[in-house]
Amino acid sequence: MNNSAPDEAATAAAATPGAVDESVAAELARLRDSIDNIDAAVVHMLAERFKCTQQVGHLKAKHQLPPADPTREANQIARLRQLAENAKLDPAFAEKLLNFIIAEVIRHHETIAAGED
Amino acid sequence: MNNSAPDEAATAAAATPGAVDESVAAELARLRDSIDNIDAAVVHMLAERFKCTQQVGHLKAKHQLPPADPTREANQIARLRQLAENAKLDPAFAEKLLNFIIAEVIRHHETIAAGED
Repeated sequence: MNNSAPDEAATAAAATPGAVDESVAAELARLRDSIDNIDAAVVHMLAERFKCTQQVGHLKAKHQLPPADPTREANQIARLRQLAENAKLDPAFAEKLLNFIIAEVIRHHETIAAGED
Repeated sequence: MNNSAPDEAATAAAATPGAVDESVAAELARLRDSIDNIDAAVVHMLAERFKCTQQVGHLKAKHQLPPADPTREANQIARLRQLAENAKLDPAFAEKLLNFIIAEVIRHHETIAAGED
């Protein structure tokens, strides 16, 4: 099939191992090593974060405070959006990410509260 | 309403500012300060991560490599689940989080590829 679209041909060639230039492969490996290092750091930071939020959860359950705190969350989101902007990270992404993490935290708090009621 | 459920009464009292014991409020503030420090660290790590993935995106677009790489992603997920487990973080949560970040990265790569085609 000589009339296949050039884009398809290029993609097929590029997807074949060995078809990528060695220096390109090396550069990709270098960047991926950095990404892996950063991911390990983030996982460990989040493990530490959940240790804190678990303590918050126990404190809230013990003193019958509600699991969610909309005022605190609004402040966290505003602060993180600002930090993201300063770090040239998309503030909308930072907000979505925090909401994703908070949803998990609230799920934990509800589990803790149910266990301590 | 003297016959309101005890849980509701407790929640209403706890939600009122000043109703929480001072030492509890101090402990909550201490934990929240740590959470805020960790969040700032995570935002800056992710800003650095996106700098790396933007470079990967440009490299892939320039050499017509596909934006997504299922083998790489499977390796990343397996590695992060193991790291999470060692750090006592829920591996399922770590995997969901990585998928959330990767989805954003692929969106970026597609934008870069569209711009460089």
